[in-house]
Amino acid sequence: MPERRISFAPGPAMLPTEVVTAFQAAVTSYGTTGLGILELGHRSTEFADLLDDTLARVRDLVGVPDTHEVLILHGGARMQFAMLPANLLPPGRSADYLNSGHFAHDAASEARSHGTVHTIGPTSTGYRRLPDPSTHTCAPAPAYLHYTSNNTEIGTQYAAPPPVPAGSWLACDASSDILTRPFDVAGHGVIYATAHKNLGTAGLALVIIDRAQLAPARRLPAYFSYDVHARAGSCYNTPPIASILTLNLMLRWIGDAGGAAEMSRRSRTKAALLYDAIDSSDFYTGLVNPDHRSLVNVTFTAPTAELEHQFLAEAGLQGMDGLWGYRKVGHLRASLFNAISIEHCERLAHFMTHFAARRRRTTLSGHTIAATTLDSA
Amino acid sequence: MPERRISFAPGPAMLPTEVVTAFQAAVTSYGTTGLGILELGHRSTEFADLLDDTLARVRDLVGVPDTHEVLILHGGARMQFAMLPANLLPPGRSADYLNSGHFAHDAASEARSHGTVHTIGPTSTGYRRLPDPSTHTCAPAPAYLHYTSNNTEIGTQYAAPPPVPAGSWLACDASSDILTRPFDVAGHGVIYATAHKNLGTAGLALVIIDRAQLAPARRLPAYFSYDVHARAGSCYNTPPIASILTLNLMLRWIGDAGGAAEMSRRSRTKAALLYDAIDSSDFYTGLVNPDHRSLVNVTFTAPTAELEHQFLAEAGLQGMDGLWGYRKVGHLRASLFNAISIEHCERLAHFMTHFAARRRRTTLSGHTIAATTLDSA
Repeated sequence: MPERRISFAPGPAMLPTEVVTAFQAAVTSYGTTGLGILELGHRSTEFADLLDDTLARVRDLVGVPDTHEVLILHGGARMQFAMLPANLLPPGRSADYLNSGHFAHDAASEARSHGTVHTIGPTSTGYRRLPDPSTHTCAPAPAYLHYTSNNTEIGTQYAAPPPVPAGSWLACDASSDILTRPFDVAGHGVIYATAHKNLGTAGLALVIIDRAQLAPARRLPAYFSYDVHARAGSCYNTPPIASILTLNLMLRWIGDAGGAAEMSRRSRTKAALLYDAIDSSDFYTGLVNPDHRSLVNVTFTAPTAELEHQFLAEAGLQGMDGLWGYRKVGHLRASLFNAISIEHCERLAHFMTHFAARRRRTTLSGHTIAATTLDSA
Repeated sequence: MPERRISFAPGPAMLPTEVVTAFQAAVTSYGTTGLGILELGHRSTEFADLLDDTLARVRDLVGVPDTHEVLILHGGARMQFAMLPANLLPPGRSADYLNSGHFAHDAASEARSHGTVHTIGPTSTGYRRLPDPSTHTCAPAPAYLHYTSNNTEIGTQYAAPPPVPAGSWLACDASSDILTRPFDVAGHGVIYATAHKNLGTAGLALVIIDRAQLAPARRLPAYFSYDVHARAGSCYNTPPIASILTLNLMLRWIGDAGGAAEMSRRSRTKAALLYDAIDSSDFYTGLVNPDHRSLVNVTFTAPTAELEHQFLAEAGLQGMDGLWGYRKVGHLRASLFNAISIEHCERLAHFMTHFAARRRRTTLSGHTIAATTLDSA
């Protein structure tokens, strides 16, 4: 295998080398089929076994109770922005959305095609603080409260699920932190996540749904009905087979490493390395309220845009990519999805400290001269 | 590469060896990214180049005029069964669907969520003959007439598009014969196709749509709007990147071979080999009306179900798989998508002839004794 770079990109994310190697072997030969994974029939025994094994591993690793169904669907989280309210926002009811970031905003927008939507947030500081649902009176009671457990673009994360309004249930977009920590699945009506951050590659969404919520709230085309996909065992149409193999290999890798508990321990260690590098410097500034910092997307600024560009270029020379911020936010961001190791973060933290030292602020006469390059070597 | 079997399956189809080999190389290393295709960022220059090149090759090979937009979307044809009427069946109008097979039937069902649908067909012989829209009075004029250019499960194919009713336009599900022959794109409002038969692997649908049809007929969630995906250049959300690379490699392979004209020549030759093996025997019977025979799905029966099972088993021993019929139809079927070569069909035709000769009917006393095994070797 050629030397691999380290990608701190916000997704599609890099994969563990073991996953890449195992997938590559399957491209020419999958099981005993005599063909590769791109050519595997979805009615074959081999695919049925792959899908069953994948669903069982999700159930085991995420901790899905028997009350909930696991679906693997085409598309990503954005398709779920549309499918969820189409299925689950009954005519005449409203839904509350915690508007904690750009994707949370878009999720709320899609729900407006199906009914009344109340948004909570952003705060007066924009998305840098998480909106607090406990300060909000939910009246009338919403059908459900939707939140984004981790906001990839700005770098905030709910440490715990928000309180559930009376008579409602919780819906969660967990795209960027599923299986980076334990989730209380039983406390949610629906949890969904795209695969290309923590669970593999682009092309599928995982949907974990309370079976009591399966019946659609309105007449829908069959393809958009959770119930139809559940009855068909996630095989209503030809599934995204190669993406499912990648998910399966990623789940095996997570399981072998120790599951959600170990991913959570690693996430805390990885994030601490970078937040320490930020907080111990007078060069970097964390982008969000410290109480709401994400363990998977660490966002920060350097003193000037020019220095941020230099940061990206020099990190690239050291084999580290994907550190630019979200296009609507800017600045710097390190995404620490499951395939990013503690060692990768040590390397980035080391680079951050040295980069800052070489371009440290020089305080003269009480004024801060931002971003003087003392040493361009 | 391990020895490859020949798959006559109805999709996911086998791929040319060159496509498999090129994809496999990209799994560990794509371009100069230092990562593989499963890890490629959708905002990277490399992906933008891949998508642009893929869209341009579709335009060139399918012959898409400037009046039409090319979209690459998640999902497969079934998602288009639902998206097409959601976008294009205006409230108060009706749509006509040629009910030529199981998938055509399901396409019509999805449209009923959005308005009045008239179906034409099946004939009194079921799906074995194509419904003829010229015998049908379209009143009131439908918004559009939908047809399935090739019916994978039963093995029929429209030799030419049906006539367009006055004041209407044509919508076509071309999943199983796109780029197996030339299409008159300008004569269609929409042509859509899943990728996993003639264009690569599962996980995406190609949609070719008249730009005049882009504005949705009703309020829709953004994700279900063709217009939104067109404005976003098929990057409204993270696209199915690995499936797009497979499509790109398949388009290169088709282009290098000579394009749609050469695929059409090969299709005629391939199908003729098998239909000749059927028609020259007193053992096999073609399943559909000879005038409506498909060039990509050749369906036939052997005298008994037991002989059909023996046929499948012996073909398997000779390295040929996927010859079982659609689950609702049964019998035998050879799917001849683009990756199936003339040589593959010669091999199958040879097998068919020898299998029949070894188990030929013996006529005694004027009675046909079906399926006597004369030689089980």
